[in-house]
Amino acid sequence: MNAPSRLDPGHTNERAQRRAQVVAELGGLLPPHALLWHSEDTIPYECDGLTAYRQQPLAVALPETEAQIAAVLKACHRLDIPVVARGAGTGLSGGALPHRMGLTLSLAKFNKILAIDPLARTARVQCGVRNLAISEAAKPYKLYYAPDPSSQIACTIGGNVAENSGGVHCLKYGLTLHNVLRVRGFLADGTPVEFGSEALDVPGLDLMSVLVGSEGMLAVVTEVTVRLIPLPQVARCIMASFDDVRHAGDAVANVIAAGIIPAGLEMMDKPMTAAVDSFVQAGYDLNAAAILLCESDGAPEEVEEEIARMVHVLRASGATSIAVSADEAQRLKFWSGRKNAFPASGRISPDYMCMDSTIPRKRLADILIAIAQMEKKYGLRCVNVFHAGDGNLHPLILYDANDPDQLHRCEQFGADILETSVALGGTVTGEHGVGVEKLSSMCVQFSANEREQMLGVKRAFDPKELLNPGKVIPTLSRCAEGGKMHVRGGLLPFPDIPRF
Amino acid sequence: MNAPSRLDPGHTNERAQRRAQVVAELGGLLPPHALLWHSEDTIPYECDGLTAYRQQPLAVALPETEAQIAAVLKACHRLDIPVVARGAGTGLSGGALPHRMGLTLSLAKFNKILAIDPLARTARVQCGVRNLAISEAAKPYKLYYAPDPSSQIACTIGGNVAENSGGVHCLKYGLTLHNVLRVRGFLADGTPVEFGSEALDVPGLDLMSVLVGSEGMLAVVTEVTVRLIPLPQVARCIMASFDDVRHAGDAVANVIAAGIIPAGLEMMDKPMTAAVDSFVQAGYDLNAAAILLCESDGAPEEVEEEIARMVHVLRASGATSIAVSADEAQRLKFWSGRKNAFPASGRISPDYMCMDSTIPRKRLADILIAIAQMEKKYGLRCVNVFHAGDGNLHPLILYDANDPDQLHRCEQFGADILETSVALGGTVTGEHGVGVEKLSSMCVQFSANEREQMLGVKRAFDPKELLNPGKVIPTLSRCAEGGKMHVRGGLLPFPDIPRF
Repeated sequence: MNAPSRLDPGHTNERAQRRAQVVAELGGLLPPHALLWHSEDTIPYECDGLTAYRQQPLAVALPETEAQIAAVLKACHRLDIPVVARGAGTGLSGGALPHRMGLTLSLAKFNKILAIDPLARTARVQCGVRNLAISEAAKPYKLYYAPDPSSQIACTIGGNVAENSGGVHCLKYGLTLHNVLRVRGFLADGTPVEFGSEALDVPGLDLMSVLVGSEGMLAVVTEVTVRLIPLPQVARCIMASFDDVRHAGDAVANVIAAGIIPAGLEMMDKPMTAAVDSFVQAGYDLNAAAILLCESDGAPEEVEEEIARMVHVLRASGATSIAVSADEAQRLKFWSGRKNAFPASGRISPDYMCMDSTIPRKRLADILIAIAQMEKKYGLRCVNVFHAGDGNLHPLILYDANDPDQLHRCEQFGADILETSVALGGTVTGEHGVGVEKLSSMCVQFSANEREQMLGVKRAFDPKELLNPGKVIPTLSRCAEGGKMHVRGGLLPFPDIPRF
Repeated sequence: MNAPSRLDPGHTNERAQRRAQVVAELGGLLPPHALLWHSEDTIPYECDGLTAYRQQPLAVALPETEAQIAAVLKACHRLDIPVVARGAGTGLSGGALPHRMGLTLSLAKFNKILAIDPLARTARVQCGVRNLAISEAAKPYKLYYAPDPSSQIACTIGGNVAENSGGVHCLKYGLTLHNVLRVRGFLADGTPVEFGSEALDVPGLDLMSVLVGSEGMLAVVTEVTVRLIPLPQVARCIMASFDDVRHAGDAVANVIAAGIIPAGLEMMDKPMTAAVDSFVQAGYDLNAAAILLCESDGAPEEVEEEIARMVHVLRASGATSIAVSADEAQRLKFWSGRKNAFPASGRISPDYMCMDSTIPRKRLADILIAIAQMEKKYGLRCVNVFHAGDGNLHPLILYDANDPDQLHRCEQFGADILETSVALGGTVTGEHGVGVEKLSSMCVQFSANEREQMLGVKRAFDPKELLNPGKVIPTLSRCAEGGKMHVRGGLLPFPDIPRF
């Protein structure tokens, strides 16, 4: 047994006993290399992409077969051990944050592409297959998997299903939910289940749709059948510069109002383009107050026509300069900047907190102007990248986590962005999931009835509440404690989790 | 109190007492004209589009405000009265079939379009608004609501949500689920709830998606926010003739395999085109063994290019003649036939039973050939119309319901189609919902675990199981009685419901 970890502030004996029990029980079900419990082995699992919250689990299981998963779940169910499933750990809301008294169930070994059917245009893959690997495998058939979160090189389809991931192309092609046909997995007690259908509709209750985005709370998904779509014959991207964020925001609303559904419509402000361009040299206009990236894909004739219409709308909306990608290399260069916005922010600041609210498209300029005022108020910088076409914001607040005062101001800044988003007619969450980070926001977004209904469905799947407990759906008492309308007002949403 | 109805084969006293109780209770909550209980008033509600099953309810309520709906639900919840919500009654699987001891809750009065937001491209409408009325209201903004079931003139958006309706354009634009953003309504006990979001993603469990297609079992939906999409600048339709159903079936698979996603891809066999053309004179090729309708919509350049590619594939697949709609009038004429396939079948036979299975696209010809053999075996005719692009079949078996032997053979014929669909790699249900008609099929489609999971979610929403009870999810004992692999094998799926 390992020494008590630094993350173990009490009840050490109870934890040690529990760990011994789990290790003894699971040791008989898994090969020795598939069960980790020494602190030096479990520390890589202490957080996901939301690095502000960390917790070591009792142990980490890395099963290699579905039979092992079922056996592990059955054992944990019998022993009342919480189970937190984990893919690549790239999530941004702490969905894969371990449970202090629980098992982390890594699905990293489930990385096989099982079948690609080019005629039915589907891929059947194990949950640990990386998002991009699906498109790579489908490429010989001129097909691809559309949802493309920024982390697509690393993130897994199982994690995408858990978080209902989007990406820069989801404006046109939809989120994970719209591109998944069938999921297979296990309930908390190890019962195998399969939901969804390769037909368009599914008979009976559509439990697949409620599994997608359920953040590991309902079942452990082991296999996913996704829809593949034809690779567009051609794609071109416009980079448009604006000397005023209001013009840029209005241009977004105007493009959509003109009846165009771009393949992507992204916005970055000046500090963001500066950060990104010094990192990947994407060729952005560094003098612009904001730039837009507008993509069109499809048949060549269609793309030419759509690009021309978008250029017209962007000019009429006050674009100061417009560049259209001349070839695929230039198009990928334009996107390389956007796709590296998060690591680029990591280069210019010790830490950053990524917010993820939504607003109506027509209020884009208002929120940018409000955020600029908040920068002064809280004495922190914020760089902004938006899925502008869907009105989904990703302001990245820059701070130093080693300075408690900066962390405190950063949290107040974040809460202010969320409250302002709601005041502008938006919502407190976008595409990154609730996890632990947005737990208190759920009190604002949903009524007590609606949250109770979610808990009811949770219990229908998992009556002992062992799968990823304490996340996503706040209890009535938590909302009452937090003050319903007081969104994250300086209060940690998860006070029992050590913070770094 | 009215005289005992012909559908009242026993327990008359219990029913009369229950009815008196319901009428007394609801009479205080609704205006007099909004509560029907005399047999001559409730008989129009005795069935929906699945006319083979009929049942009068205890009473019919026609509330006019959400407060009345909540009050009615609360009263029924207290008295343990089952409640069956009803839209336009056009459903084809008996989802709105009344409960013998229950209340039918008609939502016909909820027929207002509340808001159209052309910038956000959404419409907020009451549940009783007709499907087509949404597109009519959106037309001034050059927008429309994409899902277009054949019944779209009459069917309501609330019914579409209940059944997750599709239509000829769902291959490209998705089902109801993919076009609905938010639903508002009431739980069985009258609690108001709202699920979904106008943002792309919804935080927490996606209970909106499980409400869509839940056939009135989870909640009564009163208000729906739908996504509107730009009216295509142009649409053109190809009518292609084939002298061999195998060539026609292969052509469908070839179009999809060529990377084209047509706006619609429909197939009709020779008896169907004959029935339809004598009804609406759609200009179909009456000598063809099968015809395909292939639509392209979008920008003019895109449509020209896609039509040319489809014509090329259809020719290479053996089309004997090809006509492309020259103008909008001709395009609508082509579709008028397809959209009238069901009433046209009603003209050539006293009754018909519409099946709704799915198969892999590449097996279209196989199922048509198998159905032709079944026509001989069961001594009944069958006309065929398929959403070929999605592999969704609608064989219409023609019979006379007054002849018990024909009805029996028709049911065996239908069961044979479903079993053959499964044997060809398909499923027993497509887009019409389970209702009462497909109840036994659910035993084949889902394992006991999966059905139990559905019942668990049902109970999480509706613990007393008062909303549309006995439909959609068969109990374990029903599946055991029916013989799990013996799909509808001559057995009525709902033996306690009188049959006509």
